[in-house]
Amino acid sequence: MSESVRIVEVGPRDGLQNEKTFVSTADKIALIDRLAATGLRSIEATSFVSPKWVPQLADATEVFAGIERRTGVSYPVLVPNLQGYERARAVGVEEIAVFSAASEAFNRKNINASIDESIARFEPVLDRAKADGVRVRGYVSTVLGCPYQGEVPLDDVVRVSVLLHRMGCYEVSLGDTIGVGTPGKARAMVRAVAAEVPVAALAVHFHDTYGQALANVLACLEDGVRVVDAAVSGAGGCPYATGASGNVATEDVAYMLHGLGFETGVDLDALAETGRWLAGLLGRDTGSKVGRALAK
Amino acid sequence: MSESVRIVEVGPRDGLQNEKTFVSTADKIALIDRLAATGLRSIEATSFVSPKWVPQLADATEVFAGIERRTGVSYPVLVPNLQGYERARAVGVEEIAVFSAASEAFNRKNINASIDESIARFEPVLDRAKADGVRVRGYVSTVLGCPYQGEVPLDDVVRVSVLLHRMGCYEVSLGDTIGVGTPGKARAMVRAVAAEVPVAALAVHFHDTYGQALANVLACLEDGVRVVDAAVSGAGGCPYATGASGNVATEDVAYMLHGLGFETGVDLDALAETGRWLAGLLGRDTGSKVGRALAK
Repeated sequence: MSESVRIVEVGPRDGLQNEKTFVSTADKIALIDRLAATGLRSIEATSFVSPKWVPQLADATEVFAGIERRTGVSYPVLVPNLQGYERARAVGVEEIAVFSAASEAFNRKNINASIDESIARFEPVLDRAKADGVRVRGYVSTVLGCPYQGEVPLDDVVRVSVLLHRMGCYEVSLGDTIGVGTPGKARAMVRAVAAEVPVAALAVHFHDTYGQALANVLACLEDGVRVVDAAVSGAGGCPYATGASGNVATEDVAYMLHGLGFETGVDLDALAETGRWLAGLLGRDTGSKVGRALAK
Repeated sequence: MSESVRIVEVGPRDGLQNEKTFVSTADKIALIDRLAATGLRSIEATSFVSPKWVPQLADATEVFAGIERRTGVSYPVLVPNLQGYERARAVGVEEIAVFSAASEAFNRKNINASIDESIARFEPVLDRAKADGVRVRGYVSTVLGCPYQGEVPLDDVVRVSVLLHRMGCYEVSLGDTIGVGTPGKARAMVRAVAAEVPVAALAVHFHDTYGQALANVLACLEDGVRVVDAAVSGAGGCPYATGASGNVATEDVAYMLHGLGFETGVDLDALAETGRWLAGLLGRDTGSKVGRALAK
């Protein structure tokens, strides 16, 4: 039982992106370096989308240029198009993440494009990445529900996942963007996707809006998933639910994984301390229950 | 998939017992009546232990005398000894709950008795209850860890559960008092007990100290458990971990159960509203993520 699970820490990007309190560039750099020091091996560092959309991450270039870049640690960044790709590459980014919703309504509302059109827009990015030897991760959002269309057909989740995988994403992260999923539905979704994309190329990404994230992670682990996205301190929120909880807290995921006998390489005490430090920057209590319990 | 799960609401007793803010007798009565109106069918109303030990529940008699007593709803109360039993019966209690830790160290520290001595003390209570036609529920605490001895042998958990069941408890609730358990350990514990006590006579009782409660509930449901203790608004705390979270929130349990296709009979919106109202009385945000997400 020394099987390992890789945690993809998304706090500096997906977490901060949904936090209103601005975190300084120096603090973002410190956050990422502290996270790497806890033993995390995949840390999504920032996003090269337009600063107009995500003011919190307008300092993407400075942040990426300032971090330590430890050997053995991946620092993917979100990239929306070739322009973002160029900016990212200019500071030495070696792994990127692209994204599409599984919901037609979500895509239309957010980027005024169908799923197929939105994925087609990523083709030149994927081509360039391939030529440059840059690794690409793919996000599929709204896999268990959509704020605009409600139910999202499993077929659409599978189709988008297959497209991203075929286009060259080494890993597809399945995201319950609005956190409405429950374990049976999460499991059914993962099974449907795993019938078409190798389960080793899948990650799960849960938001804790309804407190279900860790139970959903458990259900997906039981089905063979071995990569889990999480955000230290449960950073983030949900733009579609006022006051909602953010991503599942990395500390709570790591505690569960260790209890289940999985290796993560993460020093839980150091991680919990980093989470409390981040919560302090954000002016609130840590969103991790492990973080609170270990605080003394 | 219209199998049902019974939720045992323990907020008015286990929840409030660990809350520092005093809740008035009238508000306690209103809480219990509101909970019954949400469709809950088992509501632990109060505790007839000595007011010296639990000042919050010193008004047990007044609370029980004041509640509505709906047909079809059980209102068990905690009873530590014959004296408490008499007080409870004097106001018409028809179901009681008795308790023992599975940890020798916990029993010795808390009641200066061994497990066997502590259970022996309940024998006269169980005898009287049987003669009076009073139903008895049994709690086994510290089933996944103890603040004094750390690990608790599974054999001890099984032994105490069997004893309580043999003495006449129609249901044995297995409690992770300090909330340290993870799903694999919770499952192994339930399996060990279910080898000796029918699984239909088992309930699980998780505290969310480390955020694991709902994942633990899921693991136990997968093993056939169909009774789950929970506290509205995640009321409570842990005397052994400062600032720790309390019981698993009933709202979050109900949301998961409904998503899994189980019937609970509970109106989730009404429950979430009651949880937010209780949190207001306690001067804090609701401890239920569902409660927060549904708040608008």
